[in-house]
Amino acid sequence: MEMPAPSAAVLAKRDRIVERLRKLLPADAVIDDPAETRAYECDALTAYACSPLAVVLPSTTEEVSAILGLCHAEQVPVVPRGAGTSLAGGSLPTEDSVILGVARMTEVLETDYDNRFIRVQTGRTNLSVTGAVEEDGFFYAPDPSSQLACAIAGNIAMNSGGAHCLKYGVTTNNLLGVTLVQMDGTVLELGGAHLDPGGLDLLGVVCGSEGQLGVVTEATLRILPKPEGARPVLMGFFSNEIAGACVSDIIKAGVLPVAIEFMDRPCIRACEAFAKAGYPDVEALLIVEVEGSETEIEEQLGLILQIARRHEPEVLREAADADEAARIWLGRKSAFGAMGQINDYICLDGTIPVSKLPEVLRGIRELSRGYGLEVANVFHAGDGNMHPLILFNANEGELGKAEALGADILTLCVEVGGCLTGEHGVGIEKRDLMSVQYTPADLEAQMRVKDVFDPAWLLNPAKVFPLAASASRRIAAE
Amino acid sequence: MEMPAPSAAVLAKRDRIVERLRKLLPADAVIDDPAETRAYECDALTAYACSPLAVVLPSTTEEVSAILGLCHAEQVPVVPRGAGTSLAGGSLPTEDSVILGVARMTEVLETDYDNRFIRVQTGRTNLSVTGAVEEDGFFYAPDPSSQLACAIAGNIAMNSGGAHCLKYGVTTNNLLGVTLVQMDGTVLELGGAHLDPGGLDLLGVVCGSEGQLGVVTEATLRILPKPEGARPVLMGFFSNEIAGACVSDIIKAGVLPVAIEFMDRPCIRACEAFAKAGYPDVEALLIVEVEGSETEIEEQLGLILQIARRHEPEVLREAADADEAARIWLGRKSAFGAMGQINDYICLDGTIPVSKLPEVLRGIRELSRGYGLEVANVFHAGDGNMHPLILFNANEGELGKAEALGADILTLCVEVGGCLTGEHGVGIEKRDLMSVQYTPADLEAQMRVKDVFDPAWLLNPAKVFPLAASASRRIAAE
Repeated sequence: MEMPAPSAAVLAKRDRIVERLRKLLPADAVIDDPAETRAYECDALTAYACSPLAVVLPSTTEEVSAILGLCHAEQVPVVPRGAGTSLAGGSLPTEDSVILGVARMTEVLETDYDNRFIRVQTGRTNLSVTGAVEEDGFFYAPDPSSQLACAIAGNIAMNSGGAHCLKYGVTTNNLLGVTLVQMDGTVLELGGAHLDPGGLDLLGVVCGSEGQLGVVTEATLRILPKPEGARPVLMGFFSNEIAGACVSDIIKAGVLPVAIEFMDRPCIRACEAFAKAGYPDVEALLIVEVEGSETEIEEQLGLILQIARRHEPEVLREAADADEAARIWLGRKSAFGAMGQINDYICLDGTIPVSKLPEVLRGIRELSRGYGLEVANVFHAGDGNMHPLILFNANEGELGKAEALGADILTLCVEVGGCLTGEHGVGIEKRDLMSVQYTPADLEAQMRVKDVFDPAWLLNPAKVFPLAASASRRIAAE
Repeated sequence: MEMPAPSAAVLAKRDRIVERLRKLLPADAVIDDPAETRAYECDALTAYACSPLAVVLPSTTEEVSAILGLCHAEQVPVVPRGAGTSLAGGSLPTEDSVILGVARMTEVLETDYDNRFIRVQTGRTNLSVTGAVEEDGFFYAPDPSSQLACAIAGNIAMNSGGAHCLKYGVTTNNLLGVTLVQMDGTVLELGGAHLDPGGLDLLGVVCGSEGQLGVVTEATLRILPKPEGARPVLMGFFSNEIAGACVSDIIKAGVLPVAIEFMDRPCIRACEAFAKAGYPDVEALLIVEVEGSETEIEEQLGLILQIARRHEPEVLREAADADEAARIWLGRKSAFGAMGQINDYICLDGTIPVSKLPEVLRGIRELSRGYGLEVANVFHAGDGNMHPLILFNANEGELGKAEALGADILTLCVEVGGCLTGEHGVGIEKRDLMSVQYTPADLEAQMRVKDVFDPAWLLNPAKVFPLAASASRRIAAE
């Protein structure tokens, strides 16, 4: 997208701010050359882009505090950024904002196996948290598909999940404490390596707050001992409805797989073409994984296969060895990349009660026909977290139509008792749908909490809340 | 404790408020006869008592909203009350306050096995939530010792845990949504039967907020399929330190029992005398429980017993049948009652990193000698949630000394990286210790969130925050 040139006022302000920032930080930690700031114009929601005023890359909590203190004094908006993998535009800049990127903050600060936690700077990637402890037999459970790239900072901002969150919970269930720098530069320590302490649980509201309340610079994360083994099984069914019913039955039976993933035919074909995972060409595919000792695996799989057989599967295949297991997961985890090869797409994140799966899949098919756009489905079925991928052709100007279909699908999710977003966050993408999810009183209560932490509404502007509401809040504060 | 007679001004105000309350509620739902309000003078922290202005017992969210709206208009403080089992004085009235008791709000509003949740009014007791679903093979996991009596409202207020929370988490991990009535009478719906939705997670901060933010009238709770079976094993050790080391080793090994409970000799003897559970007379006792299918139980117990044997236990005894298992738990669950038979006691709730157990147990012993007061230890060792019982004689005026010892023990817990309270809440008991746990900036952030929900500081006054801080907040608001 071509950007208009910045105005003279913006340029003058930029020069002053950048000059002051350079006094706080090493020379290479302040970027204002437009050729370099271009890399920060957008995140993984690439349909939207905007050049920031400048980019800063601090290395410590103290530097973050100094940056925020300065921007607070100068009333400059700040957009916190992890690895820029947000699918919801969670780190999209505005032209008057400074991007505060935590990419250089990757240190492991403390590892404590006795008490099963690790403390890291939040620029560290999700996978490299596990990387720091896996030789000692531990792992960090939440596993977004982007885990190779995405930063813990963004995981906390979006309360990210992943395929294995059915058993282990999402980020909030694995986050013990954070260091939070408030917009005025003051530093709070929230939570710690113990049960929730007394007082108001600010950690709970910071997790998932999408950079609206402060910048999280350090995090204490729960680590778990690696299970002895794990085994996925592939199940192919004749229809989405049958696969959905099978998921419901597994959940009801009380057996707890670590993951139940669902893909429909358009998604299966794209993944197969891309990753050669050996997926069968069926209408609907489930990947169900169990873990534990060999005995536990056998016992759980026995029960799951028995349930699956009642739904007359076309295919039922246990991974024979570790290689095959890895290939099965590679296919699933590359689903978004695979779709991106052949189409423009919007990835939704609506979440529904598990029993509504067949109904919602039918509704999506009808809506998709009405708009004349294909929708591929791939999602964490076990906890009802859907990721419908709306396929469209940007060059033919279909983005608007795709967004309208997305809004209709998310509204359907809310109508059946679900919500707009399970793990990707609201960002800019869903801000104006928030009034579908929440009453004016609900939103007002949330915005009053935002007022507490960021009275001038400088942090990560124009996101999460309906644009009109956050704009009027910003103006009222000025 | 003898109370002074209320002043004429208080009596006049009471008459006016009571008259207005009677217009909102059925006649028997407003209590102002001092003979009857006496029953609401205190909760389970019986050392403190105060008569309220009046007591109201609404039956619906609408009635709660009307009551709060009225009290807000009249600037009358409101003390929400579940079943009054708080060990921290969480529902202690002030003389100018109205007690809002939810004891009549016990309905099951919805049961959904497909999506594994139940929605109840919050006056329902913890155990009767399980009671409503157990015939269908489900249960509600958090299990405070007081579960026969305590209400879900109080569980949410205190973010209550219980013996089995090692595996299933505390209330916040099992709470999907609430209906919250704010002090001005407006009603918010927070969360729901799905993953955390987008926007700020107000549910997270409401859970554990001790009635500071609003009155929770309805709750959506996760229910789980009952495991096939469970089996506790008793382990007796020669010292607290050895038992503590055994707990650490079990946790590190990655096996996840549903419960690891710890009792020391003074506690074991009291429980044995009271409940005849067949406990051995040893220095330190662990109850470790595992659950699942028979194969899973065998496998997990095998590993646990192997670890225990390395610590040369005096006693190692598996429950032979369901009766014996029940007796083992009856002993543990009656610990507080048993101690109450023979002593006055204060029950602490400090929580520490598991690896610090031996160090903290030694510290408690030294402090206890210094004060000349005995301390019996019984606690959820698996997650480091300690419940030291400080034994004293109220008739000999030892309460002050016991409280001072309690403060020293809790300070020790914070010093080793733990916190003041794991599941009982701060209440009035620990309000002035909050500055040991939190910096002034941390507390200020919490109090500003309280300001958002209750600007006049009318809800559950004089609790959670240091008394001086909340008093000045109250005055500033007037």
